[in-house]
Amino acid sequence: MIIQKTENSRLPDFDPNNFSFGNTFIDHMVICEYENGKWGDVKLVPYGPIPFTPAMMGVNYGQACFEGMKAYKDKDGQVFLFRPEKNFERINKSAKRLAMPEVTEEMFLDGLKALVDIDRNWIPQGEGMSLYIRPLIFATEEALKARVANKYMFAIVATPAKSYYSEPVSVKISDHYSRAANGGVGSAKAAGNYAASFYPTQLAIEEGYEQIIWTDDATHEYFEESGTMNVFVRINDTIYTPPTSEKILDGVTRDSFIQLAKKRGIEVKIEPVAVKTVIEAQKNGTLKEVWGVGTAVVTTVFQALGYQGEKLELPKLSDEESFAAMLKKDLTDLQNNLSEDPFGWRVVVEKDVLETV
Amino acid sequence: MIIQKTENSRLPDFDPNNFSFGNTFIDHMVICEYENGKWGDVKLVPYGPIPFTPAMMGVNYGQACFEGMKAYKDKDGQVFLFRPEKNFERINKSAKRLAMPEVTEEMFLDGLKALVDIDRNWIPQGEGMSLYIRPLIFATEEALKARVANKYMFAIVATPAKSYYSEPVSVKISDHYSRAANGGVGSAKAAGNYAASFYPTQLAIEEGYEQIIWTDDATHEYFEESGTMNVFVRINDTIYTPPTSEKILDGVTRDSFIQLAKKRGIEVKIEPVAVKTVIEAQKNGTLKEVWGVGTAVVTTVFQALGYQGEKLELPKLSDEESFAAMLKKDLTDLQNNLSEDPFGWRVVVEKDVLETV
Ligand SMILES: Cc1ncc(COP(=O)(O)O)c(C=O)c1O
Ligand SMILES: Cc1ncc(COP(=O)(O)O)c(C=O)c1O
Repeated sequence: MIIQKTENSRLPDFDPNNFSFGNTFIDHMVICEYENGKWGDVKLVPYGPIPFTPAMMGVNYGQACFEGMKAYKDKDGQVFLFRPEKNFERINKSAKRLAMPEVTEEMFLDGLKALVDIDRNWIPQGEGMSLYIRPLIFATEEALKARVANKYMFAIVATPAKSYYSEPVSVKISDHYSRAANGGVGSAKAAGNYAASFYPTQLAIEEGYEQIIWTDDATHEYFEESGTMNVFVRINDTIYTPPTSEKILDGVTRDSFIQLAKKRGIEVKIEPVAVKTVIEAQKNGTLKEVWGVGTAVVTTVFQALGYQGEKLELPKLSDEESFAAMLKKDLTDLQNNLSEDPFGWRVVVEKDVLETV
Repeated sequence: MIIQKTENSRLPDFDPNNFSFGNTFIDHMVICEYENGKWGDVKLVPYGPIPFTPAMMGVNYGQACFEGMKAYKDKDGQVFLFRPEKNFERINKSAKRLAMPEVTEEMFLDGLKALVDIDRNWIPQGEGMSLYIRPLIFATEEALKARVANKYMFAIVATPAKSYYSEPVSVKISDHYSRAANGGVGSAKAAGNYAASFYPTQLAIEEGYEQIIWTDDATHEYFEESGTMNVFVRINDTIYTPPTSEKILDGVTRDSFIQLAKKRGIEVKIEPVAVKTVIEAQKNGTLKEVWGVGTAVVTTVFQALGYQGEKLELPKLSDEESFAAMLKKDLTDLQNNLSEDPFGWRVVVEKDVLETV
C-alpha cells in the first residue's frame, strides 16, 4: 500500500457535536485504479478531487456500485468494523452483475482498515455515533460507446455519522412504481437503482408518506424492500421477511436481525410476504409491527401503511413490547462492544496497521 | 454563452481516415452547472478534465442520463443536426424520471449548435461519416446520502463517427434477463440501464450471439428492444414494432422509420410483438426480416434469432428486397442532404452562430 499522509488535517475544524452527515469527509481516502486487465497499487491519500471529463463512462453508462458500512468506537477508544467480509462479498456480487472487475480481499479489507486506522480520530464516540464508510467501484474510462469499460477506480471514502435515531414514518405500499425487474439488477448495490427510486419517493412524499414499500413489478402483490432497507413484518409473535432474490438486496442488517431474533427464540419466517396478508392482519389486529433495516439508521419503524388510498395505522408499541426496538438494541450493543459477540461479527481495527501492511 | 476557445487545437493530429470512434474527442465541450436551484452560465470550453472526488453523487447514486445524436456534413460542407428537438424532449423526460433538473431549450439547442459550429472542421465528410454528440446531465454534488442531489452538470461532448456499416448479427431472445421493470426507468436514457445490460449481453456472446432481444421481465413473451436499439419485425409485407411505454425507449430512429415506411406506403403496425408470433412466422416462412434501429448504426439486420436453445435463421434479402435496407437509405439520404426533407427534420448549423448567440 502506498501511503501519502495529509499535511493539512481538517480534524481541528471538525466538531463532533455539530457536523453535517454525508458532507463532512475524513482527511484521507483509499484509491486504486484498474487498467490493462489488472488493479494497480492501493493508495491511501488525502481526500480530494481527481480529474475526470464528462465522457467518463461511470456517469454515461452507469457501471458503478458501492457499499455502505460503519466503524464504531467503544468507550475505551477501540475501533471496530462490523462483518466487513459481508460487504466485501457483496461489492463483488454487484461488480459481477454490472460486468465490472471484482476487487481483492486485500484491497478491500486492508484498505478499509488502513483508512479507518489513519483517521481513527475522526470517529465520533457515543451512542449511535459512528464513521460511515463508502467503498465504491466505478468506470473511469473516457469513451462514448455503450460497452464494458476498460478502466475503473476502486475508492473508499468516509464521513462521520450521527445518532441513528429515526422517527417512526408512514410508508406507501407501491402499486405502480418498482425498484427491480425479474432478471434485473435489484440484488446488486448498483448506482442506478438509487436514482430510479428518487422520483417515485418524491411522489409518495407529496401524498404524505416518507418512504415506499417496494412491491414486485409484475403484480405489486408481494413486499420486496422498503426505501433503501430490507423489510420485516411481525404478525402476532412471528417475524416475516421476504427471501433474498435477484430483486432484493441481501442486507447485512437483515441477516443480523434474523440471527439475533433466532437467538432470542423468536420465530422468523423467511418467505414471500403478500400485501394481502399484511393488510388482513392489520384489519384483524394481528399486525404488530412493520419496519425497515439497514446500516444507515439500523431500524426505521413504520407508523402507518398507505395502500390504495387508505392510511392503515399500526399499533404504537413500547420499547419493551417491540421486537424491532429489542433487536435494534441487541445489534447496536454488539456493534458498539457493549455486549458479548457470540457470532464473531466485530472486527477490531488495530492501531498502526499501517506499519504492518 | 461564455466562450473560451482552445489555444491548442488537436485537429492537425486528427486523421479522418484513421481514428478510433468514441475515444477521439473534438477540441471543445459545453458545460453548465446547476446549483442553488438554478442553472448557471452555459460555457463553451476546451475539452478536458474537471475535478471530482469519488463521493460525487453521479457515480454513487446513478443520477445521470444522456442523449446520443449526430451532426452530418454534406458534400458542400454544410452541417446539419437531425431532429434535435426530439433529443431535447427526451433528455428532459429522462431527467424528470431520475428526479434531476430539466435543461432549457436554449442550453440544449444553442449549446449544441455552438459546439458543432466551433468544431465543424472535426466533422468527417463522406458516406456514413458524422459527428456523434453526447449531451448528458449528471449529479456532481459530493455527499454520501442516498437522496436527490443539489448540484448537477449538463455537458455536451462529441467524437467523430465512422461509417455505420454493420454486419448482420445473431440475437438471443431473452428468457431470463431483462432491461426494464414495470414502473421502472426503461423509457429513460438512464445511465444505469446500460450497465445493467452488459453482463446479460456478455453471457449471450458466450453462447454465440452478438446481442439480446429484450423481452418483458414478467413473462418474456413480448419483444421490447434489441441491445440499445428499438426493434422492427417484418412478416410478409407488414412491419411490426412494439408501442413505446415506460419500459421502452422512444427512439428517434424508430419514429423516423415509422414515418418513412408510411410515406412509402408500407403497412406499419404499432402493437405488442409476441415472441410466439415471430417464432411461428419463422417456422412457416412468413418472417422476412427482423432488425434494430438507433442513432449509432441506424440499422442492424439480424441473421438469426436464438430462442430456447435453437438458432432460427432468417432469410437473406438483397438490398432491393429488404425494407430495412430501403428505409435505412431513405433515412441516411435525408440526414446527409442527399434527398428532399418533406418532414423538416434537418436543422442547419449556421456558420459563426457564436457571433450571434
Ligand atoms: C436497496 C437496499 N436494501 C437494503 C439495504 C440494507 O443493507 P445493509 O443492511 O447491508 O445496509 C440497503 C443498504 O443500506 C439498500 O441500499
Ligand atoms: C435503449 C435504447 N433503445 C433505443 C435507442 C435508439 O434511440 P435513437 O433512435 O433515438 O438513437 C437507444 C439509443 O440509441 C437506446 O439506448
